[in-house]
Amino acid sequence: MNEIRSLIEQLRVKRIDMAGKDFLLTWEKTQDEIEATFLVADILRAMRERDISPRVFDSGIAVSNFRDNSTRTRFSFASACDLLGLYIQDLDEGKSQIAHGETVRETANMISFLTEAIGIRDDMYLGEGDRYQREVGKALDDGVKAGVLPSRPAIVNLQNDIDHPTQSMADFLHLAHYFGGLDKLRGKKIAMSWAYSPSYGKPLSVPQGVIGLASRFGMDIVLAHPQGYDLIPDVLEMTKKQASASGGSFTYTDSMDEAFKDADIVYPKSWAPYDVMLRRVPLLHAGDKDGLKALEKEALANNTKFVDWECTEEKMGLTKNGKALYMHCLPADITDVSCEAGEVAASVFDRYRDDTYREASYKPYIIAAMILLGKFANPAALLESLLDRGKQRIFGA
Amino acid sequence: MNEIRSLIEQLRVKRIDMAGKDFLLTWEKTQDEIEATFLVADILRAMRERDISPRVFDSGIAVSNFRDNSTRTRFSFASACDLLGLYIQDLDEGKSQIAHGETVRETANMISFLTEAIGIRDDMYLGEGDRYQREVGKALDDGVKAGVLPSRPAIVNLQNDIDHPTQSMADFLHLAHYFGGLDKLRGKKIAMSWAYSPSYGKPLSVPQGVIGLASRFGMDIVLAHPQGYDLIPDVLEMTKKQASASGGSFTYTDSMDEAFKDADIVYPKSWAPYDVMLRRVPLLHAGDKDGLKALEKEALANNTKFVDWECTEEKMGLTKNGKALYMHCLPADITDVSCEAGEVAASVFDRYRDDTYREASYKPYIIAAMILLGKFANPAALLESLLDRGKQRIFGA
Amino acid sequence: MNEIRSLIEQLRVKRIDMAGKDFLLTWEKTQDEIEATFLVADILRAMRERDISPRVFDSGIAVSNFRDNSTRTRFSFASACDLLGLYIQDLDEGKSQIAHGETVRETANMISFLTEAIGIRDDMYLGEGDRYQREVGKALDDGVKAGVLPSRPAIVNLQNDIDHPTQSMADFLHLAHYFGGLDKLRGKKIAMSWAYSPSYGKPLSVPQGVIGLASRFGMDIVLAHPQGYDLIPDVLEMTKKQASASGGSFTYTDSMDEAFKDADIVYPKSWAPYDVMLRRVPLLHAGDKDGLKALEKEALANNTKFVDWECTEEKMGLTKNGKALYMHCLPADITDVSCEAGEVAASVFDRYRDDTYREASYKPYIIAAMILLGKFANPAALLESLLDRGKQRIFGA
Repeated sequence: MNEIRSLIEQLRVKRIDMAGKDFLLTWEKTQDEIEATFLVADILRAMRERDISPRVFDSGIAVSNFRDNSTRTRFSFASACDLLGLYIQDLDEGKSQIAHGETVRETANMISFLTEAIGIRDDMYLGEGDRYQREVGKALDDGVKAGVLPSRPAIVNLQNDIDHPTQSMADFLHLAHYFGGLDKLRGKKIAMSWAYSPSYGKPLSVPQGVIGLASRFGMDIVLAHPQGYDLIPDVLEMTKKQASASGGSFTYTDSMDEAFKDADIVYPKSWAPYDVMLRRVPLLHAGDKDGLKALEKEALANNTKFVDWECTEEKMGLTKNGKALYMHCLPADITDVSCEAGEVAASVFDRYRDDTYREASYKPYIIAAMILLGKFANPAALLESLLDRGKQRIFGA
Repeated sequence: MNEIRSLIEQLRVKRIDMAGKDFLLTWEKTQDEIEATFLVADILRAMRERDISPRVFDSGIAVSNFRDNSTRTRFSFASACDLLGLYIQDLDEGKSQIAHGETVRETANMISFLTEAIGIRDDMYLGEGDRYQREVGKALDDGVKAGVLPSRPAIVNLQNDIDHPTQSMADFLHLAHYFGGLDKLRGKKIAMSWAYSPSYGKPLSVPQGVIGLASRFGMDIVLAHPQGYDLIPDVLEMTKKQASASGGSFTYTDSMDEAFKDADIVYPKSWAPYDVMLRRVPLLHAGDKDGLKALEKEALANNTKFVDWECTEEKMGLTKNGKALYMHCLPADITDVSCEAGEVAASVFDRYRDDTYREASYKPYIIAAMILLGKFANPAALLESLLDRGKQRIFGA
Repeated sequence: MNEIRSLIEQLRVKRIDMAGKDFLLTWEKTQDEIEATFLVADILRAMRERDISPRVFDSGIAVSNFRDNSTRTRFSFASACDLLGLYIQDLDEGKSQIAHGETVRETANMISFLTEAIGIRDDMYLGEGDRYQREVGKALDDGVKAGVLPSRPAIVNLQNDIDHPTQSMADFLHLAHYFGGLDKLRGKKIAMSWAYSPSYGKPLSVPQGVIGLASRFGMDIVLAHPQGYDLIPDVLEMTKKQASASGGSFTYTDSMDEAFKDADIVYPKSWAPYDVMLRRVPLLHAGDKDGLKALEKEALANNTKFVDWECTEEKMGLTKNGKALYMHCLPADITDVSCEAGEVAASVFDRYRDDTYREASYKPYIIAAMILLGKFANPAALLESLLDRGKQRIFGA
């Protein structure tokens, strides 16, 4: 309990302005806001582990809008919302034909009369996911202003074309616990590396989210990928600025080995080239199946030139004492397990399996923290009240 | 708080017999029952807005059975049930093949062992939606009588072939607030008018629901549609009787202009001709795609003769001081926005957009009121107890 | 209330070791554990009927994983979980591609960070459903051991290829109430008989579950089916042993009449031959539609030889005083109602309809009992505390 009270005291002194705001990109949040999010996540987890229910809502809707498939984020969102007392209602496009454009405004209002939070995953169309989330946010602002909505639901970006903040924040809460504190990340080398996968079209938001967040903690970030597998230029620019401002560095290499050399952390993960993602958008819009197939074929053929971009034991041997922490957002393409040749060797993955599961385990608490901070102006006071209330999550436990 | 107590006092003197009964057609309910439903909806909304939780169920299932697509009603139903503490379980025909016929009886019981409310949308087949809802109700009655079910779930008609009471009741609660009371509707002219849409097969239940309810408040109702776009004859008959009994009037015109002239309220909305809906039923049953396509083609071609049935600025100019309240159940077919030519001009819709959103915002509370009244014999006492309990909906808010 | 306290006292003296364990096959549970499950189910039902909420969880996830269609079990699971306070999150394969194999381990962990219970239906593939459930269980054990999961979710078998314990336990709780106690089953004759149906591929788990449970209460079990419609040999072996150990008997006949003769209970129900189910597995895996069609055709043709295996009035006349209790897991294939020729005559089914509904009504409570026993080491103390807490399920009721 004292541990929780101490976390609340740390939270109390953070200068934050998150209530009524959405959580879309980590780089829109101040350092204090990022750290407050980690603190709230840790507090919620600690409360639950001590059987103290952090349920703040006696009723209320949380909308989940998944414009792409998902198991783990879906479950994380559901778990987070349920923990706070919200009922999850899916906005399923199959069932309800929500669309970009004029109807966004209307639908955003129609689903929000009793809604506290909206989680949106929209990562398929480069240049559109983030825009869509802001469009929804703007519609909600208008709805509140017009007196149509009683309160502003908080939007949580569950992955878009630019950032994947629930993933990267979970990743870094894991790192903070692994290394003993966020301050311990200073000077650590992290290799965010492309890796081979026999699939294509994987979004850029994971690597972008990782470098976008890593660059705030004074880390030495090496981004590695074959030439042509670029990320969004704006994100690279922003990362460079943040890295320098935080006393870290951000460099690029086209060699996985070089990236892994003396790294403390490696994050080998496939993604599609920026250029391919751009070309894919009009094809997806047009429903041009032949065009998509041709593009896929071309992209896959190009991938095979880089089949040696695999996180093998040999490559792990290049890292700091051969013991860098391996990270992945899961599911990983594991050589000889999920495919013939993939992102990571089976023996490497096996050794770090539990670590990757632990990494994932922070996501529900990160999401719950984002919602709570988006809804309550004084989270420290709220959490203290919850602690004082002392309601058991499991009766009689 | 005093405002809420005053509403409860108004509710207390209503003579109602709604507990254990379903809410299927507004014209089956007495005037006191209709007004009680409005009062409970207002009370629930006021409680929520003052952070008093109206959660009455610590557990319990609400079944949603949507036999047609829906976003807004689905969300309204979910929000209403969650507000009262019920967990929504979808009865999805894709997943579970519920069917008309003998199996209705069985399924109705199987889904109801711990169920408090059942919301059903069944509006595709003229002559069947209402019949289906009553069949379910009868099965539930039998189940209770046989001791199979511990209590009778309340059925809420979420739109059938005849009426759409959650829509019309929300519409009129909006009107009551807009004009300052239900009694202010007396003598007001409402134009329920067909409008052009480039689609076909829209159910008759919205216009029927509107005239079926408007005719209880002493309003002057003008129903306007091109010849051939008739509504169900029985509903017209009932409306005429109700209008006359309430001191209002009910007339028909085949001119949108005439309907709009001096109207206080206009409700321009497309629907399919009764005759087309009738012809569609056997085709739907037979799965006759060619027949359906031919019918659609014919109906759409016929629609185009009436493309000037659009709620334009010019037509709005005909209304009382040019300022009639525009209403729509949403989504509207907006010219140059959602289609080339539609029900309403963009500038008209834009001006009334927030009003239509507000109109929709009453639906969750109307549904919650219908459920509550279907389950509790003494709603005034219950609501007073909830007020006295004073449980916050949002802890620490 | 005294009735409930008396049931709790009976529960208190049962020697059970169910917490942290899954409920997969009834024959893995001791007699005391089976009886404890019945007692908890009865207690939960009695509490709910007296408006005492047995909600033990203030939040928490229950995962439902239906690898086959289902209405009644889906609703039973949802009702049970909601009664205890758990939020149900579907793991839909369409949405999330869970698969047998390596990914089971990962998915099991990913969905379980805040999960208390997992219900799995996997009955299509002979030799795989049970194996899959154990694979999930093993993955959860590993997750807990590795510190990835805060607690072990309890798995409930909602039907697999071997057993259907939520069905058979509901069946026998019904029998206990019908005959006035489990001890009254001793010496009763139960006919578990194959019956004709114009469909094929029905799982073996219902008849296997019934004989596997019946054999624990000293009953005389007659299994009847046409030659070739065998059940899994291991299950027959186990049943024989259990029957003999409990002082009952287990015999086979290929005559429905002989089985029905002097029976106290008849359970006429179609299933696919073991041999057909075996042959179907590789075809299903290969997605061999032609092969499946050919097998279906052959199986249906074979079925038609046994169209007289119908539970008619005549056959019911053979039973003890012509008044055996008819049972079915529903839905039944009713002659002249759901098909031309089926498992049971319409007049027989009609007479027992309410009984079969009552039979089904126990399932939600059986599932809730399984979850509660899988999570709490001292259920008697817990239930007593819930009784003392005395929280109303319906406020103000």
